[in-house]
Amino acid sequence: MEHPGTAAGRRAGVIAEIVAIGSELLTPYRQDTNSLYLTGQLNRLGVNVVFKTIVGDSHDDLVDAANAALSRTDIVVFMGGLGPTEDDVTREAVAEALGLELRRDAEIVAGIERRFAAHGWKMAPNNLKQADVIAGAVVLANANGTAPGQWISGKFEGREKIVMLLPGPPHELKALFEQQCVERLRARLPQQFISSRELKIAGLGESACDARVAPIYKRYPDIQTTILAGAGEIQLHLKTRGSSLQSAQDRVDELVNEIERELGDCVFSDNGDSMEQIVGYFLQMRNATLAVAESCTGGLLAERITSVSGSSRYFVGGTVVYSNQLKTTLADVPAPLIDQYGAVSKEVAAALAEGTRRRCQASLGLAVTGIAGPGGGSPEKPVGLVFHALASDGGTEVVERRFAGDRARIRWFASQQALDMVRRKLV
Amino acid sequence: MEHPGTAAGRRAGVIAEIVAIGSELLTPYRQDTNSLYLTGQLNRLGVNVVFKTIVGDSHDDLVDAANAALSRTDIVVFMGGLGPTEDDVTREAVAEALGLELRRDAEIVAGIERRFAAHGWKMAPNNLKQADVIAGAVVLANANGTAPGQWISGKFEGREKIVMLLPGPPHELKALFEQQCVERLRARLPQQFISSRELKIAGLGESACDARVAPIYKRYPDIQTTILAGAGEIQLHLKTRGSSLQSAQDRVDELVNEIERELGDCVFSDNGDSMEQIVGYFLQMRNATLAVAESCTGGLLAERITSVSGSSRYFVGGTVVYSNQLKTTLADVPAPLIDQYGAVSKEVAAALAEGTRRRCQASLGLAVTGIAGPGGGSPEKPVGLVFHALASDGGTEVVERRFAGDRARIRWFASQQALDMVRRKLV
Repeated sequence: MEHPGTAAGRRAGVIAEIVAIGSELLTPYRQDTNSLYLTGQLNRLGVNVVFKTIVGDSHDDLVDAANAALSRTDIVVFMGGLGPTEDDVTREAVAEALGLELRRDAEIVAGIERRFAAHGWKMAPNNLKQADVIAGAVVLANANGTAPGQWISGKFEGREKIVMLLPGPPHELKALFEQQCVERLRARLPQQFISSRELKIAGLGESACDARVAPIYKRYPDIQTTILAGAGEIQLHLKTRGSSLQSAQDRVDELVNEIERELGDCVFSDNGDSMEQIVGYFLQMRNATLAVAESCTGGLLAERITSVSGSSRYFVGGTVVYSNQLKTTLADVPAPLIDQYGAVSKEVAAALAEGTRRRCQASLGLAVTGIAGPGGGSPEKPVGLVFHALASDGGTEVVERRFAGDRARIRWFASQQALDMVRRKLV
Repeated sequence: MEHPGTAAGRRAGVIAEIVAIGSELLTPYRQDTNSLYLTGQLNRLGVNVVFKTIVGDSHDDLVDAANAALSRTDIVVFMGGLGPTEDDVTREAVAEALGLELRRDAEIVAGIERRFAAHGWKMAPNNLKQADVIAGAVVLANANGTAPGQWISGKFEGREKIVMLLPGPPHELKALFEQQCVERLRARLPQQFISSRELKIAGLGESACDARVAPIYKRYPDIQTTILAGAGEIQLHLKTRGSSLQSAQDRVDELVNEIERELGDCVFSDNGDSMEQIVGYFLQMRNATLAVAESCTGGLLAERITSVSGSSRYFVGGTVVYSNQLKTTLADVPAPLIDQYGAVSKEVAAALAEGTRRRCQASLGLAVTGIAGPGGGSPEKPVGLVFHALASDGGTEVVERRFAGDRARIRWFASQQALDMVRRKLV
């Protein structure tokens, strides 16, 4: 695929554009999220996504967008606009941009009619639009919806192109892409062996992390390294190609090992698992159980732990002790201790962790108390001040942290630090 | 602004394209979110966004994207790529697409040098890139960062265009847009009076809701109505233009009133407030306090309630009673009741709500117990079965619901239904 003077012509590899179609994606309320999934899938096949375009349900605008996409990339994926309503214009617009005709497919018509008859529904004639197929296209059966996808490959303005029309609903898109597109793409793309790994790092800032790992990954120029700072964690994405899958994997593993040696237990995951999943693995591995007492995180910590399916095996439960009274009645914190040190103090954090551990009969008791803001701060105890305590049969450990940002960010960081305390205890 | 044959030429109003720049936005991990904010701002000024393009940090790709955008819309907003690194190519690429020169601005250079000197930092020469200004551009001071924005307006290929270069970090973008762009845009746009309202609806499915409201909003063709189904709620966005702000507001209010009459207390918000905010308002208004006991939602319900700043005024706290033992020890559910009916039953839900209300000395006790899956279901008690109970001094109410979907969706719907029970109790 050689296209001098275009985005494709400027690059060695095969490149793609994703065109997401839907007027709701041009409002302040909705966003295209399908393209993240699709980008991951295409990357795995060795295809880089170099443009994404979002366009409304307007025939002419979509023809514009399709012309631009077809002129500059090798693979164009259109998502959405395949339904039966007047707003669904993808088939017509892409056909126009490709200079091809639409033909009504008798087999698809029969299938739609059968589906309506089976349900005893009356079929509005509009539905037959979904049987319109671009000349030469392969029809891609949609196991989860009415509108099939379409696959067109061939020369367009003298250049080899692959064009896909995929349904917008995420579960339809994913199933259809995996069942119908992955193998078709693999058959037409140069054989590639790609290996990628994702490291997650806690307890280090982005620049501190980069300062330590950049000297390492710069010695691996063949591995594409991306650092992303998330909420309370840093992600390091590593990707390379090799002459065989084994050689690509070995090469990435070599870099992973070097980075893990440098960062030690700051690396909490090397396969994409979340902090709450990792904590769950360690608790199960150590045959330990956990109970939590939350003040400023207000349930977020328990919510994250229980978002992992099967967490009842190691998480017994806990309390959200928002009022001081509940800290006493539900977690046995002596009222005089709160009076003396305040609810946000290392003493109360420790008592909360110990009381919760005892009350809930768990091997570990974890407590968080702090000031999430925006109100409630003082010069001595500012917004963002958080105490974390972890009680075990070996005693109680307390950590004081100060987090910056708004209420949601402070709560998230506080929950992340709490989970990381458990991880470091069990690692 | 008349542009026959282009997206702009096909429309009466002023249209915009947003171009988000950054290679990280073309990975599976990161998404452009700035454009949602910017779309809301532009809509408020009467400008519709008709294309969004996402492009990496590649000079040539960005020139492509800029050419396409400039050829089809009246206003083009470029976001990102204004920093000092080699990857920051927005200034150069937009200048090339516009056919204008870049000139280094002495005043900006002096400002950057002063900032570095003040901090005692050594300035890498790269930083001076940030002083490059497109010929004829107005420099837009950036109160929160080094890179200023730029505003270019004038004829491009014979047509009036407005082009903005804005920084990518959300807090820089927002402040700069509001301080420097809104008034400039207002001065150049036809005067518009736009009124919009957002209704949120609970306890109705999307099609049931649309069936009831479509006959109403169809009588208001001058009001743009958008229905969006969210998790456990439906959003109805209404927007119109009028000859005065008052007439536009009156018109939207008229439709809002008609819809509220039709849907009654299914409408829980008419100003965009979330369910947890609304519940907080009602609790404060009624001088009531709330405590919760959660099983399957695992802390999500408390997390949502406490995500609202100031929630300590009406929320005392609660328990996450994941194990059966904690249901007894923390919320006084009699163990024989659990043995007889099972933890997921209306009897246990009621006892949880009552025990929690009593233990936490709150006016309302709210409990959720159910099966979030994917494991733990049975033919009698399938995944998705959830019991909600609300205890007050008037007695205890229990609701049984069955939710479809995965663990996260079931938990979210269960928390939404629980909050809605409180709202309906207090409304």
